[in-house]
Amino acid sequence: MGESFGRYRLPNEEAIMPLIDSCNVACGFHAGDPPSIERTIKLALECDVSIGAHPSYPDLQGFGRRKMDVAPEELESLVRYQVAALKGIVQALGGKLNHVKAHGALYNEAARSEIVAQSICRAVKSIDPGLIVYAPPGSAMAAVAYMSGLTVHCEVFIDRIYHDDGTLQSRKVKGAVITDVAQALQHIGAMIHQGHIITLEGKSLPVVADTYCIHGDNPSCLEILRTIRAQFPA
Amino acid sequence: MGESFGRYRLPNEEAIMPLIDSCNVACGFHAGDPPSIERTIKLALECDVSIGAHPSYPDLQGFGRRKMDVAPEELESLVRYQVAALKGIVQALGGKLNHVKAHGALYNEAARSEIVAQSICRAVKSIDPGLIVYAPPGSAMAAVAYMSGLTVHCEVFIDRIYHDDGTLQSRKVKGAVITDVAQALQHIGAMIHQGHIITLEGKSLPVVADTYCIHGDNPSCLEILRTIRAQFPA
Amino acid sequence: MGESFGRYRLPNEEAIMPLIDSCNVACGFHAGDPPSIERTIKLALECDVSIGAHPSYPDLQGFGRRKMDVAPEELESLVRYQVAALKGIVQALGGKLNHVKAHGALYNEAARSEIVAQSICRAVKSIDPGLIVYAPPGSAMAAVAYMSGLTVHCEVFIDRIYHDDGTLQSRKVKGAVITDVAQALQHIGAMIHQGHIITLEGKSLPVVADTYCIHGDNPSCLEILRTIRAQFPA
Amino acid sequence: MGESFGRYRLPNEEAIMPLIDSCNVACGFHAGDPPSIERTIKLALECDVSIGAHPSYPDLQGFGRRKMDVAPEELESLVRYQVAALKGIVQALGGKLNHVKAHGALYNEAARSEIVAQSICRAVKSIDPGLIVYAPPGSAMAAVAYMSGLTVHCEVFIDRIYHDDGTLQSRKVKGAVITDVAQALQHIGAMIHQGHIITLEGKSLPVVADTYCIHGDNPSCLEILRTIRAQFPA
Repeated sequence: MGESFGRYRLPNEEAIMPLIDSCNVACGFHAGDPPSIERTIKLALECDVSIGAHPSYPDLQGFGRRKMDVAPEELESLVRYQVAALKGIVQALGGKLNHVKAHGALYNEAARSEIVAQSICRAVKSIDPGLIVYAPPGSAMAAVAYMSGLTVHCEVFIDRIYHDDGTLQSRKVKGAVITDVAQALQHIGAMIHQGHIITLEGKSLPVVADTYCIHGDNPSCLEILRTIRAQFPA
Repeated sequence: MGESFGRYRLPNEEAIMPLIDSCNVACGFHAGDPPSIERTIKLALECDVSIGAHPSYPDLQGFGRRKMDVAPEELESLVRYQVAALKGIVQALGGKLNHVKAHGALYNEAARSEIVAQSICRAVKSIDPGLIVYAPPGSAMAAVAYMSGLTVHCEVFIDRIYHDDGTLQSRKVKGAVITDVAQALQHIGAMIHQGHIITLEGKSLPVVADTYCIHGDNPSCLEILRTIRAQFPA
Repeated sequence: MGESFGRYRLPNEEAIMPLIDSCNVACGFHAGDPPSIERTIKLALECDVSIGAHPSYPDLQGFGRRKMDVAPEELESLVRYQVAALKGIVQALGGKLNHVKAHGALYNEAARSEIVAQSICRAVKSIDPGLIVYAPPGSAMAAVAYMSGLTVHCEVFIDRIYHDDGTLQSRKVKGAVITDVAQALQHIGAMIHQGHIITLEGKSLPVVADTYCIHGDNPSCLEILRTIRAQFPA
Repeated sequence: MGESFGRYRLPNEEAIMPLIDSCNVACGFHAGDPPSIERTIKLALECDVSIGAHPSYPDLQGFGRRKMDVAPEELESLVRYQVAALKGIVQALGGKLNHVKAHGALYNEAARSEIVAQSICRAVKSIDPGLIVYAPPGSAMAAVAYMSGLTVHCEVFIDRIYHDDGTLQSRKVKGAVITDVAQALQHIGAMIHQGHIITLEGKSLPVVADTYCIHGDNPSCLEILRTIRAQFPA
C-alpha cells in the first residue's frame, strides 16, 4: 500500500482497503512519495485499518526488490529515517503507527541474516519500543525482534509459494505469486484449518500465523480478498 | 548543517558546532542522507546545540536553491514528511526537535508568498504546534506563522547582504555571501548595537533578531564565528 | 511514451504504438528508467515509429510538470545529458533519433521564454544539428529553433484545450485534457479540414500542424486514436 | 573524476588533471550531475587527457560502493544509458570517448563474475565496439571483454593494496587506500621496474599494466602524482 509515486498510481487501493485489517505503507525509498503516502494513510484511517511502516533499501528504480550490501550502522540509519517519517505523518493525520514490516529484498535479507535483522530492530526500538514487528515464522527477524523485547507478529503470505525451509519462492520464477483465486483459497484454508502450508516440494510445513499478507499489486488481489472474506467471515 | 550526502562531506561541522547555539539539519530533500543527518544530530546533542529541521523543495541536484512550482497541498505533504523524519530521528537519538526553518528557495518563497508559508505552517502544526518557526523579520512566513499560533523567531543572516525591502541579495550576484571577516563583524555589530542592517543600497533597515544565522558552507564560517564569539562573549 | 519507471508501468504502449507515426520517449528525469526506455524504443522500432527524445526538468516526483528555476547554462547541460543518452541508446538498438520535444513544464516554459528555448536549442545542436525540434506553432521555442538553423515541426495537441493566445489550458483545470472521443474528433477535424483550432474562448485560431500529439496516459488515448485512424486513413 | 554532484565538489580536479593521461568520468548514477560532468570533460579536453565513462550501480547515496543484485538484462540497460550519455556529451563538447571503466562495487563484481562482465561488455559493444575496456589483470572482466572482441587495458591501482589472488583489499579495512607517498612510490616502482605487486600477504604478484590508476578523492592524490611524475618523467 502507499506504493504509488508521483504520477504513478498502483490501482485498487480504495477497493482493497475495506477488506483488510492491517496495511504496510511505503516510506519513500522503494515507492511512496509524501502525497501518495498521505492518501493511503487517510484511506486506512477511514477504513479503520492498522497502519505499518514498510521500510526498504533505497532503490526506487528497482522497487526495493534488489539486495543491496549496506553496512549495518548505515542500514539502521536508513530504517530509522523511514520509520520516523511514517510514524510522524500517521500521528499528524490523527492515527498511530502500529507496526513495521521490512519490504522486498530487505524483508528477505532480514529473514535470513541476524545482522540485518539487528539493524532493523535497533532502529525500530529507538523510535518506539511499542511497535510490533511483522516477520516470517521461524526467521532470523522473528528471533532477533523477540530477543530485543519487541512484539513479533508472524506473517504468512496468502499469495506466495513457500519452500520446505520456509523461504519464499523467488519472484524471478514464473508462478511465484499466486494469482489463481481457487489456489489462494486452498493455500489459506490449509493455513487456517490445518495450521500448515503445502510447500512447493509438497511437504506440510506447520505455521502459526498472526497475520496473513496479500500483495496490493497482485492482479487478483481484490478477487482473492473478496472470496476469502466470504469464506472466512471473521 | 547535516548537509552532507553519502560520500560528500561539507567540512568543518565538528569545529563549527561548539560555536553556535542552534543549527538547522537538512532532511534529505536538498541534502542529508540518513547517516549524515544522524552524525550531525549526535554532534549537536554533544555540544548542547538546539536542533531544527531544514525542509526543502525536493531537489538534490540543485541543493534546494531553485524555486519549484509545487501545489500547496503537495508542498504541505513534502514538508510534513521531512519534519516528521527529523523529529523522529532526533527523539530516537535522545534529543528534542526545537524549530523548523525552510531551506534555500523554499525559505525565500515562504518569505514572500503567504500561500507557501501557509503550507509550511500547516505541516509544522500538524507535527507539533510547539515547534518554533524561524523566519525573516517582516516576512509573509513570520506573519503566517504568528497568525497560526506558532512561535516565531526572527532571523537575520550574518553573512548575507540585504536589500532595502528586507529581501536577500540573490546568490547569483557575486558578493551576496559575506566571506570577509571584518565586513561580517561590522554587519552583526550594527544589528546588535544599533538594531539595524546597512542595506546594499545604503539604507538603515531596523531589525529585531531572535537568532543570527551563518551558512555552514561559507568558507570563512569558522573564522567569522570565532571572531564574533571573541567580540560578543555571550 | 517510455514513461514507465521501475515497477510502475503506464499502460497500453503495445496497443498505441502501431497507431502513431512518431513518439516521444522519456529520458529518465521525469520518468523512464533505462529498462523501460529500451522497451519503448524496441517497440517503436518494430512498429516503424519515429523516435524523439523527451527531456524534462529533473523532477521524478512531480513527473516534470512543475516549473523549476534552472539557470540557463545548467539547463543546457541537463538537456544535453538526456538527449545524448536517448540518441546513444536508440543507435545502439539499431535506430536513429529523429527529434526532440521538451516535456511538461519545460515544454511550456520553452514555448514562452526565449532564454529557456535557447538553452534547449544549444543542447540539441551540440548533439546533432540534424535533429528536428517539435514546438507549438507561434511559440518562442519554434522561433528560437528556426533561428538556430534547426528544423522545426509545429505540433498541436489532439487532446488538449487551447486559449486564444495559443497556450494550453492548465492541467490544474478539470477538463484541460480531452478524454471524450467525439470532442477529440471534432477538435482534430477542425485542424485538418479548416486549419484552425476552436479555442476555449470560442475563437478560431489558425494553425499549421506538422504533427499531432496525443498523451499516452490519456485514458481514452487508444479509443481516440482508433477513431481518428478510421476517419483519416492516412 | 567528475564525481561532484550539484552543490558538492570533490576537490583538486584542476590540479590533478594536468598530471594524468586518462580519466574516468562519473555518469550520474553514483555521482556526477550533468553540469559537473561537463566541467570535468572540458577540463580533460583542455589538458589533452583521454576520457572514459565510469558507469555504476544506481546508488547515489552509497556512491556506487554497495553491491546491488541487478538482473543481467537490466544491468546491461543501466550501463548502456550511462555510456550513451557520456559518449554523446563528450562528442558534443568536441572530444571522443576513449574507454569505459566500471565504478566501485560494479568494478569489483565485474572482476569476479562473468555474468556481470557480460552485461557490461554487451552494453559497451552496442554503443561503440571501438571503446577500450579498463579491467584488472586476470579478471573475469578482462577475459569477457577480450572474448567479446573489445580492446582491454589492464589496470593496476597505485593507491590500493592487493591480495595474493589479485583482488583489492576491502575499503572497509583501514589502510586499504594508500595515502603515504613513499609507500605509493614503492608500490608503483615495483610494478614498473620489476613487473610485480607486493601483496598484503607478502607475495610477489606479477602484473602487466597498461594503465595505472589513482583515486581523485585520495587525500594524497596530488602529492603522489607529483612525486611519481618527477620520478618517472614519461
